Amino acid sequence: MNTSDFRKHAHELVDWMADYFENVEDYPVLPDIKPGQILNQIPNNAPDKADPFEAIFKDFKDVIMPGITHWESPNFMAYFPANKSKASVLAEMLMSTLGSQCMIWLTSPAAAELEEQVMIWLREMLGLSSNYTGVIQDTASTATLCALLTAREKATAFAINEDGFGEQKFTVYASSEIHSSIEKAVKIAGFGASQFRQVPVDENFAMRAEVLAETIQKDIAAGFLPICVVSAIGTTSTTAVDPIAKISEICKRHNIWHHVDAAYAGTALVLPELRWMSEGVDEADSFVFNPHKWMFTNFDCTAYFVKDPVALVNTFTITPDYLKTSVDEEVKNYRDWGIPLGRRFRALKLWFVIREMGVEGIQKKIRAHIALGKWLAQEVIEHPDFELMAPVPLNTVCFRFVGAPPDQLDQINKAIMNEINKSGKLFFTQTKLLDQFTLRLAFGNTNLEAYHVENAWNQIQEVSKTYKQEA
Amino acid sequence: MNTSDFRKHAHELVDWMADYFENVEDYPVLPDIKPGQILNQIPNNAPDKADPFEAIFKDFKDVIMPGITHWESPNFMAYFPANKSKASVLAEMLMSTLGSQCMIWLTSPAAAELEEQVMIWLREMLGLSSNYTGVIQDTASTATLCALLTAREKATAFAINEDGFGEQKFTVYASSEIHSSIEKAVKIAGFGASQFRQVPVDENFAMRAEVLAETIQKDIAAGFLPICVVSAIGTTSTTAVDPIAKISEICKRHNIWHHVDAAYAGTALVLPELRWMSEGVDEADSFVFNPHKWMFTNFDCTAYFVKDPVALVNTFTITPDYLKTSVDEEVKNYRDWGIPLGRRFRALKLWFVIREMGVEGIQKKIRAHIALGKWLAQEVIEHPDFELMAPVPLNTVCFRFVGAPPDQLDQINKAIMNEINKSGKLFFTQTKLLDQFTLRLAFGNTNLEAYHVENAWNQIQEVSKTYKQEA
Repeated sequence: MNTSDFRKHAHELVDWMADYFENVEDYPVLPDIKPGQILNQIPNNAPDKADPFEAIFKDFKDVIMPGITHWESPNFMAYFPANKSKASVLAEMLMSTLGSQCMIWLTSPAAAELEEQVMIWLREMLGLSSNYTGVIQDTASTATLCALLTAREKATAFAINEDGFGEQKFTVYASSEIHSSIEKAVKIAGFGASQFRQVPVDENFAMRAEVLAETIQKDIAAGFLPICVVSAIGTTSTTAVDPIAKISEICKRHNIWHHVDAAYAGTALVLPELRWMSEGVDEADSFVFNPHKWMFTNFDCTAYFVKDPVALVNTFTITPDYLKTSVDEEVKNYRDWGIPLGRRFRALKLWFVIREMGVEGIQKKIRAHIALGKWLAQEVIEHPDFELMAPVPLNTVCFRFVGAPPDQLDQINKAIMNEINKSGKLFFTQTKLLDQFTLRLAFGNTNLEAYHVENAWNQIQEVSKTYKQEA
Repeated sequence: MNTSDFRKHAHELVDWMADYFENVEDYPVLPDIKPGQILNQIPNNAPDKADPFEAIFKDFKDVIMPGITHWESPNFMAYFPANKSKASVLAEMLMSTLGSQCMIWLTSPAAAELEEQVMIWLREMLGLSSNYTGVIQDTASTATLCALLTAREKATAFAINEDGFGEQKFTVYASSEIHSSIEKAVKIAGFGASQFRQVPVDENFAMRAEVLAETIQKDIAAGFLPICVVSAIGTTSTTAVDPIAKISEICKRHNIWHHVDAAYAGTALVLPELRWMSEGVDEADSFVFNPHKWMFTNFDCTAYFVKDPVALVNTFTITPDYLKTSVDEEVKNYRDWGIPLGRRFRALKLWFVIREMGVEGIQKKIRAHIALGKWLAQEVIEHPDFELMAPVPLNTVCFRFVGAPPDQLDQINKAIMNEINKSGKLFFTQTKLLDQFTLRLAFGNTNLEAYHVENAWNQIQEVSKTYKQEA
């Protein structure tokens, strides 16, 4: 493809992209397709000859689009959003054009220095201590793995990196509501899932700090070396907030790494009135949140903050001759700050998003999203046929229909969810709370307005009515 | 930003992008800036109020662009390229617009099924056995870590995932020329760097298989459990090719996982005449190559192939309630195939690139790149003041200026490289071979023509002349 063809096609794409943004609500949020339906439309073999771009773009529209789940839709209320913004998409266009590979300063000086600065911006925006140093990672899963590995190496004076595990067993702690990536990281780092302690939660689904303290004591007495506690600001199921300050204190007492997973809810710390959630975070060792979840920045973009960047770098650094440069002593070579060597120019989209919205613009959106969560929570509380299943500190609402005999509720709530999701008008997902099937809606989409939430609630009430049974 | 503003700005960006592609050679390949120069131009704090997009785009051009290393330039001959193509950039535009988060089938069915099919395309294009199943990863570093972790778990019946390491020490093998990411993965997986055996290489910088066999025997006798051999098709310094078939045979004999790292050179296997390089690969356990290096697909996009996908999935799988779907038994949920939970829609760009170029188009480019490597190798051989430092099986040429007393050559070659890189007309990097500072040029850029290589060679000869000394 020559440049003038590119120019032509890219302009066509821009119009399609803008149309998509305008009309996204016309698409079914969740596509009504069967496994294999897309696969069967793609030839078994790569074409020998080049296809004209027109044909490729047509197939994108005809074959791929009918199989897309529309994360862009304000009616997407499933999981946590991977929200984004138009400024972020514009940045991605430039990023892909430059194709910068930002493994070291020399391979993209502007990217390295912009990353350093926007991570300072983010730190200040969230009210984190200036003792934290930030680096961009791909996902919170990876950042948490980095935390566990750095904790492992720091606690052993880098002995496992050097010689592998010995006889000592290391324990890791989190609440029973923590994200699945923590257990995954525990396994990858070589600790073993049986050394992962899931501390029970209180009635708000937050970690019971006193049980954590007892568990650690017992483990120490039994010869284990407690190495890391992962706490949550905003658990995945209910956005519960663990008692960060108490956990920090327990960790300090035993010299244990405290990693704070605020993957989703971290963005809410832009609001000073929500800083109660992060009280004690400045006494922790690391903190992660995903601008790609709720800060309007395209996936992937994770912000990882550490108190001891030297320990992080020493955990990962390996400098072969072909990567040495004359400025290595003066600059940040971010390849040593995480697992992959290669890195995209993700700082650019953060810079675009923060500037294009301004801190006040971001705060305004976040406040609006939280207000919608509170509104639905209140509606649910007031409705006799529904039950709120967890407190709603932010914008994720967990509830269930209870207008039928208890032994049928799991099945009925699942049926309600499936029926609505199948309609294509709304997409939300479930969780399990107190062993009960629970409907869960998250309101973090960039384009979300009050009427989307009202419509969602109306749909759920409507469909639920058909399942209503007198007790 | 509303949709009509987006439309306007995106069209402006497209023109800038097309202009950039047209004029990329007008930029200095390596920017002439000092550490801190970009950082100092970015405000210390995030703006409270929104900036107009015009101002952001202006700063991108004025502040960021002067600090960009131009990976897009055909005069970028450093490292390995992160080459790409216009079709790939078009795909990235659509990917960022959809913002699909492809962690499971349900969250983006078309992405999951397209990934399955394009990985079959790639497998066939490279002539790999149909016993391989492919999955897209972010980088080869991560894929190699996956290989080591799966090897670890398979060899221990998933005992380390479950209970952590015991007393058994595990050894990993690769040649002394292997990429630094292997040692990094050895550390992360908990084996310890001292259990990483760097097998010496022969005069072609390829692993000496007989030494590998001896080393394994010795380790077994000493009570170690050999767990994985990482071989290279195309090492980082010189693109040396390890004897894959012999290594496969040794691995089979001892039931050791054989992981083939073809990160850069894997793309060359699209040429049937180069399949000698991969002889024996179908007896290996896993194979990785980066379409983002030499297959015209934007970074990041790594193709990882495994013989036993069940073992891979069992190494990583964790299914919390909030991720369960009704089709889990029927579909591929790629979140379990690697480390991060979240995943971008990378299959789309592979599909665009392969179709837009056709297999024949890709083959043609790769053949041209290899011919340029051979040409320069011959020029170097024929020049009395230069010495070829390694065989050139592909398109990476390692050589040095030798027209001065031996004790000054390291310093002089470094000076030659720095002087040329500082000119902005060309950017290449160094390696160390037989403990000697070596110039290293790689010819994999999408836009590379013969005259770029001729110009590079002329520049190197010109600058070298000024260092010429009679013996």
